[in-house]
This record gives sequence, C-alpha cells and structure tokens, in this order.
Amino acid sequence: MRHVLEWCARIGLIAGLAAAPAAAQQAGSRQLPARTIPVPQTASPEMQAIIARPLNPIWNVVPKTAAEWKALVAANAAETIATLPAMISALHVKVEPATIAAVKTYVVTPEVMAPANRNRVLLYFHGGGFVLRPGEAGLAEAIELAGFGHFKVISVDYRMAPDFPFPAAMDDAMAVYRETLKTTKARNIGIFGTSAGGSITLAMVLRARTEGLPLPGAIAPGTPWSDMTKTGDSYFTNDGIDNVLVSEDGFWGAAALLYANGHDLKDPQLSPVYGDLHGFPPTILTSGTRDLFLSNTVRVHRKLRQAGVEAQLQVFEGLSHAQYYRDINAPETIDYNNEIARFFDQHLGR
Amino acid sequence: MRHVLEWCARIGLIAGLAAAPAAAQQAGSRQLPARTIPVPQTASPEMQAIIARPLNPIWNVVPKTAAEWKALVAANAAETIATLPAMISALHVKVEPATIAAVKTYVVTPEVMAPANRNRVLLYFHGGGFVLRPGEAGLAEAIELAGFGHFKVISVDYRMAPDFPFPAAMDDAMAVYRETLKTTKARNIGIFGTSAGGSITLAMVLRARTEGLPLPGAIAPGTPWSDMTKTGDSYFTNDGIDNVLVSEDGFWGAAALLYANGHDLKDPQLSPVYGDLHGFPPTILTSGTRDLFLSNTVRVHRKLRQAGVEAQLQVFEGLSHAQYYRDINAPETIDYNNEIARFFDQHLGR
Repeated sequence: MRHVLEWCARIGLIAGLAAAPAAAQQAGSRQLPARTIPVPQTASPEMQAIIARPLNPIWNVVPKTAAEWKALVAANAAETIATLPAMISALHVKVEPATIAAVKTYVVTPEVMAPANRNRVLLYFHGGGFVLRPGEAGLAEAIELAGFGHFKVISVDYRMAPDFPFPAAMDDAMAVYRETLKTTKARNIGIFGTSAGGSITLAMVLRARTEGLPLPGAIAPGTPWSDMTKTGDSYFTNDGIDNVLVSEDGFWGAAALLYANGHDLKDPQLSPVYGDLHGFPPTILTSGTRDLFLSNTVRVHRKLRQAGVEAQLQVFEGLSHAQYYRDINAPETIDYNNEIARFFDQHLGR
Repeated sequence: MRHVLEWCARIGLIAGLAAAPAAAQQAGSRQLPARTIPVPQTASPEMQAIIARPLNPIWNVVPKTAAEWKALVAANAAETIATLPAMISALHVKVEPATIAAVKTYVVTPEVMAPANRNRVLLYFHGGGFVLRPGEAGLAEAIELAGFGHFKVISVDYRMAPDFPFPAAMDDAMAVYRETLKTTKARNIGIFGTSAGGSITLAMVLRARTEGLPLPGAIAPGTPWSDMTKTGDSYFTNDGIDNVLVSEDGFWGAAALLYANGHDLKDPQLSPVYGDLHGFPPTILTSGTRDLFLSNTVRVHRKLRQAGVEAQLQVFEGLSHAQYYRDINAPETIDYNNEIARFFDQHLGR
C-alpha cells in the first residue's frame, strides 16, 4: 500500500506524503519506479496474445465462505471445460472416467500408442491451487501429453479444499500410485503436473520413499508450488508481471491456507523444496521468465543438482505461470510437450 | 498505470478517473506501480551481501571520447586486479602470461591437474561489454575453473573497443582456437565465458563451422550477450532489478555500439541468438532470476534444444548478471564451478 501511496503522490494524485524513514526500508532492497513492460516480441504470436491478456481477474478475490469458494471454482471450471472437445479432437485422444483405488480419475489414451510406451503409464496432477479445476476441468495438460507424446495418461481428480483439505490430495495421489504399481513397474511410471500438481509430484516422491515404495522412473514437475510461504525471489520480482498468478497476496495465498488447514506451510508435504531431495528420479522442471514461481522452480532444480540428481531445467521466454501448455497451436506448447515426452521416453523403463 | 489509478480511485485516494486513451499504451503491456524488492533470503548469506549492493555506478555513465572510455576501463580494471592475489592463493593455481598466435593470453594451471584433464584445454573469454577488463582484469573466472575444476585454462586477453572494435575480438579468439587445435584434439577443447565472453563462445562455434574447423567438445556460455539489440523480455522485466547491468539504456548499450562500430547488431557474430545453432556441441548455460540477460540465456537454450542439441540450463536464485562467479566463498560460486567442471568432464574427450 505504501508503494501505491508514494506513486500517487509522485504523479500528483495526492498532495504530499512524508518521506519514508530510512530504517523502514530493508538494507539492500531495490526501489523501483513505476514502469511499463511491453509484450515481448520474442515469444510466438500465439503466446504474445496470451501474454497480452489482462491480469487474471480472480487473483485478488478472496472468497469468505465455503459456498463462495465453490461458486468461484464452478465458474472457473465451466470456462475450462468448454475448451476440451476441440483439444480432444485435434489431438486424437480418448478420455474415459475411471475409479482407481476409490479415487476419481480419467484415463486419457492416444489413438496411436507409441510401441515403446505400451508398458508405460503417466500419472498426471492438475494445477489450480488445490481448489480449482475439479473433474474434467483438470484434463487439458493430460490430453496434451497423451496426444503429443503418445502416452497413456491417468489424470487424477484428487479431492480438494475447502471440503477436503491437506492431506486428502496426497492420500488420493498415493492411493493411485500404489494401485498403478500393481500392474506397472515403478520405473515404467512417470509422474507429472503443473503448479499445485508439480508440488504433488515432488511430494509423492518424498512420501513414496518414506513409505518404502519404489520410486517412479522419472518426473516432470512444471512450475511447482514448491514453497507455499511466499519465500523466493520471483514472488517479488515477478509480482504484477505474471498475469496468471499476479501475486501471492490474494487468491493464491488464501488458497494455500485453505488447503493447509492449519498445518505448517513448511511441511515438505506442502512445500517440497524443504524436503530431502537425495535419491530422486530424473526430473525435468519447466517455468517462464515472467513466472511468479520461477524461484519455486529454480530452487528445486538447484537443490536436486546439489543432491546429485539428473535434473533438467527449461525456462520459456516471456511466459507467465503455466502458460507453456496454454495453446496447442503455439510453438512453445508443442515444444514443451515434445521435451517432456522425450524426457520420459529417455528415462522410463520399457 | 491504469490499474494503479483504478486502485487509487477505489480506495478513495482520488475522486475520479478519466479513461486512459487506449492508443497511448501498447496493447497488453503491463503497467507496474513503484515498488520495493527485498533481498531474497533464499540466496546464501555471501550472495545476499552481493545482491544487497547498490546499483553498479557505471550503468548510466556514457563516455563521450576514447580517452573517457579508457579512463573508466582503467579504473574498473584496477579494482578487479586487486582481488586476484587472494584468489590465486586460495585456489592454488599458477598464472603465466603467454602469447599464442600473436594474441595476448594468460595460461592458468592448477597445482594439481586432474589426471583426466591432462590432454584437455579450456579457452576462456571474460566479460565486460567488449570494453572492460583488459589484461589481468579478465582473469577471475579462469582462475576459478582452473582451481575448482583442475583444468588448464587459457584466458584470452582479446583486443577490445574503442581501439579495436568488431571483429578484432573474434579474430583473436579464432586465432587462439586454431593454434590450440595444432596440439589438442577439438573434442578435448572446451570453451567458456561470461556475458560478452558468452557471446564470443557462441559466435566462435558459428565461425568455426563456417571456416570448416572442427568444433570444440563442449561449451559453457554464461549469461551470454546473445542479443545486442535490447530484444528479449528480461531486458524490461529485470531492468533496475539487476544491480550489475541495471539496464541496457546507458553504458552497455553504448558499449554495444562502440564495439559493433557500424556493423548490424543482428549479425550472428555480434548477436549469436540469430545464428543457426544446429550441430552445436553439448552446451551448458547459466543465468540468475534477476539477470538482465535471463532472456538472452533462455532464448539460446530453447533454440539449441529445438535444434536437437544437448543443452543444459541453470538459473541461480536471486542473482543478477554474472554474480554466480563473484565470490569463491559463496556456495553458489562453488556450485557453479562444480557444475561447469562436471559438464566439461562428461563431454570432453580425453
């Protein structure tokens, strides 16, 4: 608020403002003037259109009751679901609901399965702050990797807040993983997901190790919500630049508390960057230069590398949070899916 | 700007608000209010001290004459050279001047050469905008990789602007490379460099291919100045956040023009991101979340990957341009050197 006040004062909108006492500023903090950031011409035209969109209108909406949360979730889901039929048709996949270990899932199967992938399965966990994208609304990225990569993908419709806070999502994820292990070798299983789903992906490996389960063959956490405590440089540098998340101070911070339900946000099952990452399977991480979670991504990458894990990082030019999978006609989305498919192909057993 | 205005209006700071003329702003550009960015606690204490430094005082100094450029270069060099004896001692290396193919160089040799590195040589190209760090002032990173990685490193003291503009630096680089090829197999040669040196590294591979020379075994361009035209998202998003380069609008933009000396800045020998990167050797790229050249780095990474090249990316949390090698006692600097050494060890011939 102080920044805005100063800004209003400087442009003459308000008459005056007392100077900030020197001690009020943390030593070494960077003071930035108001500025305008253009749409980067270095992204594809398709992505430039997405980058140019106004800020996500829900970023600073904080529902006050469970009913308000659910109304917002439902409105958001309806928008997403409307885009699916065209994707399913363009990418030549089949989507079938299935219950696995009492957990709702969707099995996404490509019309043409790559021969090398016949004995492989990918488990997918959608994003949405552990509250958005129930049911079919969580399917988009699963459809993409099934279609572009010719993999069988099980998209897990894990339970979410407000009705089912932590650790319900993790319990569902592990139940599906345990069930999948009955028919598929661990090293033939890949796990991927974006944002909240990237956090689940990382937390599953931690929990599998704790529970003595074999680890998956490879994982692809996309811009994982690896630290829920608003700790990390890009929470500040990309605040207001990322047009998807926009800021942690609003909807997402509230969603974190709703999901955590009183648990310590630094618990590695909620913020896996605080976990011990030694022994992780090969991992590929994805972010964008404008991503509020750029630091959430690169911190996990560095920590994995320091633990001796084979870990790859890719950062897409100009993209905000999770935009890399937002348009199946954009070169970036095709590139992203091809990279993830190639990584799983290189590292999963057959 | 519009959001802030609306916000001011909403909280009652201003009485009303006229609509901004639509044509005044590029469609989709992001309007940011003034703000304060704290020092990230997620960097090491050593790097937090570096991140907390004030903006590089030369960032907006634009010398008007050759004499003014040289005075600034000399003052800057003296500062850097003063830090070398302690580094040389701590890292147990020997530094000897040598003339190779009529080019001034320094040969940096570790006290203990790794047995696997006996038949390997690394060529190093310092940064400094093609104008800063002549002579010993360009040695720091060469000393580090020789010391941490136990490699023999030839640090090339290439000619620079204003006396020797483009393509003098490239001519020197290629002369040393050709001479090195007489005694060392190409696949046993690694090339690395930061900033301007990262650009030289990339441009050397392009020129070696054009000239029919065998390509080096692996390269490590650190935060390369791959696009001199101020094209790329982080030129804008990290403007004023990066405390090393700060902005392209000042010293660095002037240095680019001084070095290019009338040549097209989009010539791939000046801006290698515009080159054809097919057939490049394995490449590891490094940047930081605050780096003005984050986009210069990730654009090259994506382009290499799209060309099917084995290319790795690492982005250090909270660091501005080239800070990853700034303190041999910081975990990030040790981590950086270990990663580059490991990459060369994996990919160079023996």
